[in-house]
This record gives sequence, structure tokens and C-alpha cells, in this order.
Amino acid sequence: MAEHLSQSELDYPFKLLEYLNGFRVSKVIFAACELGVFDLLMTSQRPLSAQHVAQALDASADGMERLLDALVGIEILEVETADGTALYSSTDVANMYLARGGGKSLHDMVIYQSQTIYPLWNNMTDAVREGKNQNQKTFGIPPEEVFEAIYRSEEETLKFMGLMNSSWILDGQDVVTAFNLSCFQKIMDLGGCTGALARELARAYPSSSVTVLDLQEVVKMTRKHFLQENDTFTFEIGDFFLCELPPADLYILARIIHDWSEEKCLTLLKKLYRACKPGGGVLLVEATLMENRRGPIMTQLFSLNMLVQMEGRERPPSQYTMLLNRSGFTNVQVCRTGKSYDAILAVK
Amino acid sequence: MAEHLSQSELDYPFKLLEYLNGFRVSKVIFAACELGVFDLLMTSQRPLSAQHVAQALDASADGMERLLDALVGIEILEVETADGTALYSSTDVANMYLARGGGKSLHDMVIYQSQTIYPLWNNMTDAVREGKNQNQKTFGIPPEEVFEAIYRSEEETLKFMGLMNSSWILDGQDVVTAFNLSCFQKIMDLGGCTGALARELARAYPSSSVTVLDLQEVVKMTRKHFLQENDTFTFEIGDFFLCELPPADLYILARIIHDWSEEKCLTLLKKLYRACKPGGGVLLVEATLMENRRGPIMTQLFSLNMLVQMEGRERPPSQYTMLLNRSGFTNVQVCRTGKSYDAILAVK
Repeated sequence: MAEHLSQSELDYPFKLLEYLNGFRVSKVIFAACELGVFDLLMTSQRPLSAQHVAQALDASADGMERLLDALVGIEILEVETADGTALYSSTDVANMYLARGGGKSLHDMVIYQSQTIYPLWNNMTDAVREGKNQNQKTFGIPPEEVFEAIYRSEEETLKFMGLMNSSWILDGQDVVTAFNLSCFQKIMDLGGCTGALARELARAYPSSSVTVLDLQEVVKMTRKHFLQENDTFTFEIGDFFLCELPPADLYILARIIHDWSEEKCLTLLKKLYRACKPGGGVLLVEATLMENRRGPIMTQLFSLNMLVQMEGRERPPSQYTMLLNRSGFTNVQVCRTGKSYDAILAVK
Repeated sequence: MAEHLSQSELDYPFKLLEYLNGFRVSKVIFAACELGVFDLLMTSQRPLSAQHVAQALDASADGMERLLDALVGIEILEVETADGTALYSSTDVANMYLARGGGKSLHDMVIYQSQTIYPLWNNMTDAVREGKNQNQKTFGIPPEEVFEAIYRSEEETLKFMGLMNSSWILDGQDVVTAFNLSCFQKIMDLGGCTGALARELARAYPSSSVTVLDLQEVVKMTRKHFLQENDTFTFEIGDFFLCELPPADLYILARIIHDWSEEKCLTLLKKLYRACKPGGGVLLVEATLMENRRGPIMTQLFSLNMLVQMEGRERPPSQYTMLLNRSGFTNVQVCRTGKSYDAILAVK
């Protein structure tokens, strides 16, 4: 694969130019989401002209035409020409993932990436130089206060919660079924945010009880913005670093360990070990790196994201196993899902 | 192709996630260029550890390790492990295109993309909404003064000239040989900047004389930073919109027409038609769009770049032909190179 890239690229660097222009492709999709292009096209009964889309979304016809054409170029929209006018329509992919009301909508993930992560990554060079996050330079928040930066306003809190929610709408089912968890009667998702993962757990294990533990303001906003009518999971309020953990048979830490320094991770995992009864356990959900350092590229990018935004990192399975072993867990199993997030189950 | 993307993506949106993370891949390469990673690895006699690279480049070992791993993930670097230490080395692709001293170095293009274009694109949604460039919001320069924004400081001027230079180092040979131009004795590259295209012309047509016409400060900086010892082309100083054009058999406008409004383009092309003798001509060099609006994606992205930074646009060949026809030229030929830039030759 490396050989292949090198050989063809030496004649002309098509792939390298694609990488260098990757930020523009991202921003094309981000701008279309922000303007509501996919929402409009999903609900339209017929293909629409650029002028029609522009007028409906209060944008310029010229700018909209260029944006729609680029979306056709990456095959996220379709175009046909009638009487000399280009008419644009949505695709199944755009309807499912990019429209706000799509079945597995990543709309909130897109908004967070566009408005928070893209500006943060503009300071990646400094992050690598300094070895620490760039919240100070980007948002004026001290680097040690990582969640103060994320929750710096109600608007930002909601955006971040939307990101987490999108992520489990996409990957939740795969990670909760990576292991058969039906033997755990009481399941508690620590830092479970909007309950999107709890919902998948409740669906997959209807005879277990599922609880989300999170900060007071997060639970409040979840009840207001994210709860669904037939949700069966419950809430506990607390900071998992500070509070006494309510008893449970299985504690879940989904994308928690990767946020924090190794020291804090060990403190937390040891606390969980003490809270577990024999036969009880912890399920870590994280994007795992390959042991040979060659990928997956998406996880390698997440690890740089942890550098520029948080204080943690992504790890290969061996390092999660080591952290769990050092916290007292000896029975550790890893399951790669082949998608974005993997599961690591440790039983006491 | 669209069908293919849709079908596989509905199961899991691997390609869409790649698009959404494209900006991170770009910034990985940009940060590595800014830190000097490729320069160091090109000159190193042996593979280096992350710690060694970090120390040599005054960066954090942890941040550098993550950056190097991501570069391995996109196959721009290679890694091997010796005695438990990961050792990184360059690839032919990185040496040729990303190191400062590489044979076809795109280093200056990368720096410009990272420091000027990436922040501009953070305002793409507003550009589409307003239908005009975002120089005011990004750099505090009024939208009508497009080259005042580009040349807003000596440092920025030099960066922009570096971008243009990189671009013709990569594509110059293909565009000057798209047509046989040996019949033109005196060739004048209007807005020829660093002379990178003039150099290719002089190489391909050694019996023609080649002149670059550009603004005084641009010519001054070209002489200082870009001229090579054996260069045979000459310079004229002038603003091609304002000055009387020196006589020539062929005028070249390489990536000029795409910068400007249609009105200014027609003014310029009519001026060139008047300056041409019968048998003389104009060569336009531009990235051309497909007539059916389906690509190339890179050119569609450039057209959005013209929106967010300039006042022009990219066009399909038919629109260039129309502009040339309206300026008086009847004999127009188009040659697609299959790479980034194409050539359009109009003869009087």
C-alpha cells in the first residue's frame, strides 16, 4: 500500500493534492449543513435549481451554485439538466447522514467539527510544539480546564452534546453488541451525556436496567433536548471523579479514558475496581490504535485531536489492557468492531 | 460511481467520515511542513525516533510522536521498530514534494494553504451566503481590494509568490507543452510572478524569447528570492490592466482570468486582442470545469476558493471560448492536460 502510493505519486501527486485539499472538502459539507441545504433537498418533492435553493436559504445564487456543484463532485448530491437549467437533488447518503432529520443524522457532529474543531486545528503546529492543548489560544480558556472549555457556554455545551449524540447514533449499536452484556443486570454509563448509548444498551438488553450518570447541567439539558418518549433508562447526577459511585454490575466509560492524563485514568479505573463486585466489570469504548502504529488513520487523527483539545490520547489495546491490569482487573478482552469505536471488557 | 458511493455508504459512511475529517489530514501535513519534519528526515542518514525528531525541531516528544504516526497512517512516512523504539523515515513522495529542497517541492504551497487559505475557508458559509469574498472578516481588508489583501505585507506577498511558484514547478511543463508554441517568437507572461512558468517556456522553446510582465514590487522580490543562475527570460514592469502592453507574438494569462469579474476579464481580453498582430495569440492557463458540472472536484473547490478570496470563478471550456469570442478571437482551441491545469489557445 505504501509502495503503491509512492510509485504512482512520483509521476503526479494526485493523492497528495487530495490530502492538501481535504480541508476544503470538509468545509464544503460543513457549509452546506450550516446553510440547511440537505434539509431543504430532503423535503423537496422535486429537484431544485441553485437559484431556488439560494432563495429559500437566504444565500447568494452564485455562491450556492458553486457549493452545490462541489457537492455533486463528491457525489453527495445529484444533478440533472432540464431546459438548460441545472437541477439538484439529494442522495440517500445525504438524506440519512447529513439532513437534520435523517435516520442517522451526523448534522450535530458536522456543526461541532466546523465551528469548534476546525478552528482548534488551525493551531495544531503549536500543539505539537508545546505538547498541550490550544484552548487558550483558540478560546481564551486555560489548558488545564478541558471541560470548562467544552462547556464554556450553554450553546457550546449543547453543540458538544450534539456531537456525542451523533456519534452514538452511528456507532452505538455496534459497540454495545461487541460483547454479550446480558449477564449484567444493572448497567451504568458514566458520563453518558445525552443517553444515546444508554438507549442502544436498553434496546439490546431489555432485561437489564440502564442508568446514565452525568453532571447536573448535562442531565438537565439532556432532559430538555435529547430525551425520547419511549426511553426506559434513568439518570443519576454526579461527577464520576468526585462522587461516590452508585452500585452497578457493569460500568461503562465510553470515550472517557481518552480525554484524561494517565494519572487521572488510573485513579478513575482503580475507583471502579473498588466499586465492582466480583463478576462485575467495566466496559471501555474507545477508538483503538493498531499495535504496529500504521493506523487506523482516523484514530491517529483522534489522538492528535486529544492533544489539541484535551489532555488525553488514543491508545492501542495493549495499553488499555495495561491500565486495567494496573487498576486490579486481570480478566480483559478486546473486541474490534471494524468501525470507528471498539470495546474492551474487564471483569473483576 | 455515485451509485457506488451511496450503496456502500448506507451500511456505514466510511467515505463520508473521511470527507468530514479531511481538514485534519490536511493540517497533519501542514503542521509537519511548518515544523520542518520532512526537511529533517530527508537529510538524515538513518531513521529517527520521535524523541530525536522532537528535540531537533524544538517540539514536544509526545506531540511529535502522534504527528509522525498520523503521517505513517497516510503513507507519507514509514516506520520500523528496533529494540522497542519506533523509528521514522521519509518516503520518495515526501522527499520530492514536501521537503523544502525537494525536486518538485510544494512546501510553499503548503504554507500558504495552512496560514492563509485554511483561515479564509473558516468563513465559507458566509461567503456562500453573501456571494463575496471574506477578506474583510478574515484579514480586515475590504472585499473589492483583492490583490491588496494578497499583497498586504511583504511576508504575505512572498508567501503568495511561493504558492504560485510551487504550482508551476508541478504543472508548468504540462501546460506549456499542451500546444506546440514554437511558432511564437516573442512570448510574454502577463502577471508571470516568480517566472516559474517562464522558465518552463524558455526550456521548451529555446529559440523563442520569454518575458515576464508584473508589478514593480513583484519583480523586485522575484529577482531577490526566486531567480536562478541560468535563467534566460527577461522582465518588464507594469500593471496589465493599466499599462500599454509591450509587443509580443503570444500573451500568456496563467491563472489570471479566474481572479476577476467577467467585466474585467472582457476588458483585459479585448485589450489583448487589440495588441495582437494577425497570427499572434493568447494562451489562457486555467483549471477547467467539466461541462456537465460533475467535476473535477479539485476545480470545483478552486471555484469556491475564488469566491472566498477573490472576485472571479473557475469555468468550463465553453465559457472561456465565449469570453474569447466576445473579445474578438474566433480561432480557439482547448487542451485538457489531465492534471490540475489546462490550456486554451486563441489566435487572431
